[in-house]
Amino acid sequence: MQAGTFRIEATDRRARRGVLHTAHGPVRTPVFMPVGTAGSVKSLSPQDLEDIGAEIILGNTYHLYLRPGDELLARLGGLHDFSSWQGPILTDSGGFQVFSLSALRQVSDDGVAFSSHIDGSKHFFTPEGVVGIQENIGSDIMMVLDECVAHGTDFERTRIAAERTTRWAERSLRARPHPTRQLLFGIVQGGFYPGLREQSARQICDLPFDGYAIGGLSVGEPKHLLWEILASTAPLLPRERPRYLMGVGKPLDILRAIGQGVDMFDCVLPTRNARNGTLYTSQGKVAIKQARYREDTAPLDPECSCYTCRTFSRAYLRHLYVSRELLAYRLNTLHNLAFYLELIRGAREAIDQGGFAEFTAAYEAVFPDED
Amino acid sequence: MQAGTFRIEATDRRARRGVLHTAHGPVRTPVFMPVGTAGSVKSLSPQDLEDIGAEIILGNTYHLYLRPGDELLARLGGLHDFSSWQGPILTDSGGFQVFSLSALRQVSDDGVAFSSHIDGSKHFFTPEGVVGIQENIGSDIMMVLDECVAHGTDFERTRIAAERTTRWAERSLRARPHPTRQLLFGIVQGGFYPGLREQSARQICDLPFDGYAIGGLSVGEPKHLLWEILASTAPLLPRERPRYLMGVGKPLDILRAIGQGVDMFDCVLPTRNARNGTLYTSQGKVAIKQARYREDTAPLDPECSCYTCRTFSRAYLRHLYVSRELLAYRLNTLHNLAFYLELIRGAREAIDQGGFAEFTAAYEAVFPDED
Repeated sequence: MQAGTFRIEATDRRARRGVLHTAHGPVRTPVFMPVGTAGSVKSLSPQDLEDIGAEIILGNTYHLYLRPGDELLARLGGLHDFSSWQGPILTDSGGFQVFSLSALRQVSDDGVAFSSHIDGSKHFFTPEGVVGIQENIGSDIMMVLDECVAHGTDFERTRIAAERTTRWAERSLRARPHPTRQLLFGIVQGGFYPGLREQSARQICDLPFDGYAIGGLSVGEPKHLLWEILASTAPLLPRERPRYLMGVGKPLDILRAIGQGVDMFDCVLPTRNARNGTLYTSQGKVAIKQARYREDTAPLDPECSCYTCRTFSRAYLRHLYVSRELLAYRLNTLHNLAFYLELIRGAREAIDQGGFAEFTAAYEAVFPDED
Repeated sequence: MQAGTFRIEATDRRARRGVLHTAHGPVRTPVFMPVGTAGSVKSLSPQDLEDIGAEIILGNTYHLYLRPGDELLARLGGLHDFSSWQGPILTDSGGFQVFSLSALRQVSDDGVAFSSHIDGSKHFFTPEGVVGIQENIGSDIMMVLDECVAHGTDFERTRIAAERTTRWAERSLRARPHPTRQLLFGIVQGGFYPGLREQSARQICDLPFDGYAIGGLSVGEPKHLLWEILASTAPLLPRERPRYLMGVGKPLDILRAIGQGVDMFDCVLPTRNARNGTLYTSQGKVAIKQARYREDTAPLDPECSCYTCRTFSRAYLRHLYVSRELLAYRLNTLHNLAFYLELIRGAREAIDQGGFAEFTAAYEAVFPDED
């Protein structure tokens, strides 16, 4: 199937189940993309990712550009060959990292100047340059450079950023080589101003992208704002193209967003929480360092079939974590990602069976809204 | 086969190839035991250890006693059930760690008082207590408490320590429950005084242990002293029982010691060096952080069949290491241990074929003596 083809195979109210085809194979949606920032999903091997059924992973353009460098990646055959992950890869544009990690940054219509968080060296990202970097990386899905603003940014500055994001989107499309097997997604901005969101959505969706993302959410706002913006923005995105909610989120957030018609997700929560000892289970969150697990011989999650849960007790996982053993990071990450991927598989099945609302409701009891 | 049975199946001059039977299965000798200090060979899972052909691992009584605690281990079914490693386990006595890690320690005939390196709490090890702890751990091979002295210790203090080690060995044997499936090994001390070594060897080998270890070497002495002491001590150990050279060493050290009739080895070098980016290959040592590997698409060791070498390039391993990615620790450890285990398998084969001297000579070119 040609890269870029997206087929919706089932719907349940607004929720959709489909397949997106890429140069490295099909991706079933809804999908959760584990975050592999610098060419590695922290602590996991490609084999581990296959074992838990990961279908696509995300790489961070900002990190890969700085280290090992996109030109080196191109010379070595791209990120797939470099990392030995042979499934699809989506790369973000680096825009969000420039805004969140870089100490010095200056945005103009040209692009964004920033300094590396590693060594302070100076760099400049343009929409065209960022497409070129992602070509070098060899990602299956590229994202356009966008300007993300923090929650609390005033209307005028938000408007300027959204309109600049549109101009950058147009330049990104023109910069894209033809023909290409690398998909390119546009990003809707507009902050928390419904009018700006609507304007951005209409402008971005007028452009012939392979998919459309909603950016600039999950940036510190109260949760109800995220849902208001998502509920009004998602219906403006073309029904026939994949929709991607960037950087979201908790298990229940993902289910609710699927309920709004979103197809693609990425988030550092399962992997970062794993390294901090916060584990997701079918009975809720577990802080594995707690003394209550000291002699608990039960598996972490009796309903999970990952290597961690098949093999080890909570007592052993607690011991590894409190002893700061390296194995703790891997076993915890393996499980948290397995949990997320299983959640997504369950969501797909529920959509097929027309029971997605009930499926989501069941998770509301396990993960009460924390915001 | 009954636990404790040791059968020598081939010899080549002093080198021997045999099988030692334990309650968790046979161990082919010569054998290298990866060090799993606190219930985990750092960064590796039991599956990883099986994949590289580890036959027996070593646990540190000192660490396991402090955390998670031997009584907890006993309640949870022992270290095998706790860690899910189902192969044989040898535990040291904790004596060496008390001498190397504990800030405060005081030795008397009774035992050794020390404070925990974790929280400063006070503890007391006796020969009997240490056997009891290892019973709780459930190790297949237990070691007696011994008194290890540093290189440079004077004759009189070395003599006192060696004679105390003998008295402790007798007490350990008496403290051992009957019947038991847990083997118990004695340890020869005597520092770098050949007369004391000989006296200690005769005293320890008069006692009915299942195996005999040479302790107190590789404690900072010039390398020639190690070989002199080993060459004079090894022949004093009973031919029909397994001989264990504790804490040694580099690949070539191990081969030379096998040539002196030693059967068992443990060392933190392959695992610790892996975490520091020093990797063993059939072409010699590799410091993976070096810029020369930046675009090197070759496998780390073309002659190695471990997951790391089958899957990744030196360029990727270098990137993971300089980026401090957690995966680096696992991939490097996996390879270094695979290298050691393959070295040992090669040594066994060479003994079978009567070519052990040539096998050792081939490694002298790859790993020139660094001392």
